[in-house]
Amino acid sequence: MQRTEIATLGEFGLIKHLTEGIKLQNESSKYGVGDDCAVLQYPADKQILVTSDLLMEGVHFDLTYVPLKHLGYKSAMVNISDIYAMNGMPKQMIVSIALSKRFSLEDMEDFYAGLRLACQEHGVDIVGGDTSSSLTGLTISITCIGEAEKDKVVYRNGAKETDLVCVTGDLGAAYMGLQLLESEKAIFESQLKEFKNPEAQLEQVQPDFAGKEYLLERQLKPEARRDIILKLREMNIVPTSMMDISDGLSSELLHICSQSQKGCRIYEERIPIDYQTAVQAEEFNMNLSTCALNGGEDYELLFTVPLSENDKIQAMEGVKVIGYITKKEMGCMLITRDGNEFELKAQGWNPLKD
Amino acid sequence: MQRTEIATLGEFGLIKHLTEGIKLQNESSKYGVGDDCAVLQYPADKQILVTSDLLMEGVHFDLTYVPLKHLGYKSAMVNISDIYAMNGMPKQMIVSIALSKRFSLEDMEDFYAGLRLACQEHGVDIVGGDTSSSLTGLTISITCIGEAEKDKVVYRNGAKETDLVCVTGDLGAAYMGLQLLESEKAIFESQLKEFKNPEAQLEQVQPDFAGKEYLLERQLKPEARRDIILKLREMNIVPTSMMDISDGLSSELLHICSQSQKGCRIYEERIPIDYQTAVQAEEFNMNLSTCALNGGEDYELLFTVPLSENDKIQAMEGVKVIGYITKKEMGCMLITRDGNEFELKAQGWNPLKD
Repeated sequence: MQRTEIATLGEFGLIKHLTEGIKLQNESSKYGVGDDCAVLQYPADKQILVTSDLLMEGVHFDLTYVPLKHLGYKSAMVNISDIYAMNGMPKQMIVSIALSKRFSLEDMEDFYAGLRLACQEHGVDIVGGDTSSSLTGLTISITCIGEAEKDKVVYRNGAKETDLVCVTGDLGAAYMGLQLLESEKAIFESQLKEFKNPEAQLEQVQPDFAGKEYLLERQLKPEARRDIILKLREMNIVPTSMMDISDGLSSELLHICSQSQKGCRIYEERIPIDYQTAVQAEEFNMNLSTCALNGGEDYELLFTVPLSENDKIQAMEGVKVIGYITKKEMGCMLITRDGNEFELKAQGWNPLKD
Repeated sequence: MQRTEIATLGEFGLIKHLTEGIKLQNESSKYGVGDDCAVLQYPADKQILVTSDLLMEGVHFDLTYVPLKHLGYKSAMVNISDIYAMNGMPKQMIVSIALSKRFSLEDMEDFYAGLRLACQEHGVDIVGGDTSSSLTGLTISITCIGEAEKDKVVYRNGAKETDLVCVTGDLGAAYMGLQLLESEKAIFESQLKEFKNPEAQLEQVQPDFAGKEYLLERQLKPEARRDIILKLREMNIVPTSMMDISDGLSSELLHICSQSQKGCRIYEERIPIDYQTAVQAEEFNMNLSTCALNGGEDYELLFTVPLSENDKIQAMEGVKVIGYITKKEMGCMLITRDGNEFELKAQGWNPLKD
């Protein structure tokens, strides 16, 4: 495989090369890469949504098993997902990367290919980019900008008593995919130690992921739920509260309840879980509901709607009602399959606690 | 000194603590920290400017001699400066930090104190924040959002033949401040090696910066030129091109010329340099003009105005005309004190070349 050192292009050359051929598609994108700032213009009846994420190698991603193209795709997607979570449409993105000498031009081309693919699929213009060096590893900073109708922005704090609690897709699969990759990495590393010449024996330790493709895809190539936002619009439903599930259902639901000053009751049996997730949890001897409640990175949507929207929501494909909102004093409760009640706890991924 | 581990608060606790008491001041800031996105709203006659910067410990800053409060101030300022460089006014900021266990809560309070001070001075609302962990060191990502009148945004590509080339303040001082700090750091480290018990002898190696305060201040606490933008507005001058001087005068001037498809002639004797900068260059036996041309981080403004604005510009305090724009074919030339001509070269700081 070819390897071109980044130093041969320099900072300005690199960013020019990576952003070559980018054409601005959105009316609101006035000027893109190449000046001190990107220039945007939005009509007065729109509100502007801005979100920013910082992704660190070794903390947020592991390049042992994450291909750079997937990393680019996912980095864009997690930011795009935040815009949908406010009931908005993503429009622009600014991307900064810092990288050590370990990375080649070809690596960055792969990363950008994934990034541009995600942006293309979601109608997002890349309007700014910046690269610099890092002493160790890869750091990615992405800012995504989107728009929403002035009175249609959905916050976390609007849940009302008796509202239905809804989730999209299924939960826990991205977390199970991560466990799978981590366990194969551990096997791979322990087997490598046994060989004198690791390179020659590499194929002997290639993992077999047959039948587990969905779990890997959920971890490596998450899809932000544009389809749900469009469907809600079409059916004239404005959720009372919404966020995307990046840290785990429990954690996000507690955010909505605490910011809305409400409680909730959700039912274990209603939490949507894919068949592969269940099989894998069994194989790893893990509690399935714990995975679905606390596993992060599914990038599904969690939202609440008034009880009066029940019929419309029941008819919506890909959305499941898992419980309802209560008075604050009732607490945030999980009702298990056998009818027991437990207080929900945020055991989601907390990168500062490790 | 007290040291509180960040793990005692967790990610959400930390960001809540750091952004406590922030009140949104700007009409365009609709919703700040605490949801998936910040929410903004700008009138239709404004264009929106967005800039983002990624700052890595060991590459962009050295905590050996940069106090965290200054780092917070400077991190905010370099982004604010990018907004002024487009002839805009900064309005909102989103701050993400990733930090290793080396940092305490008190460290982050210092960082945020500097950040909030810079924002306060420039009328900027902090509307988003995020913290996560890093394997090594401190990483800072800042996005700044500003506004400009629809037809008053100034790009790099608008310089016209015969336009005057102007710079604000003086150049090279921030670079000289950096040299001074680096040299004291080297002395400090070599002296520390001589002591058996370094802590006990620390005061013996405290550097003496008397008479060099200006250089240190330029490096550690740069000020974005809001005053110049306001003065240009007041005098009804709209520059034909503009950018801020972060990588050095030569490098920035070449950007303006190349993007405007023009050449330029600038005069060495006209480049504004402070007395302390000159003394220090002499002391370090460095070429003063090279420092002023290629030293970065002054965060002064470089802009071009039509020749017809000459009288107004000459009357403006803190602005100096250093040359003029020519046809592209004439090249980008520096005329030395003794009348020789040299082609300008970008020897500015290139973080990817090291």
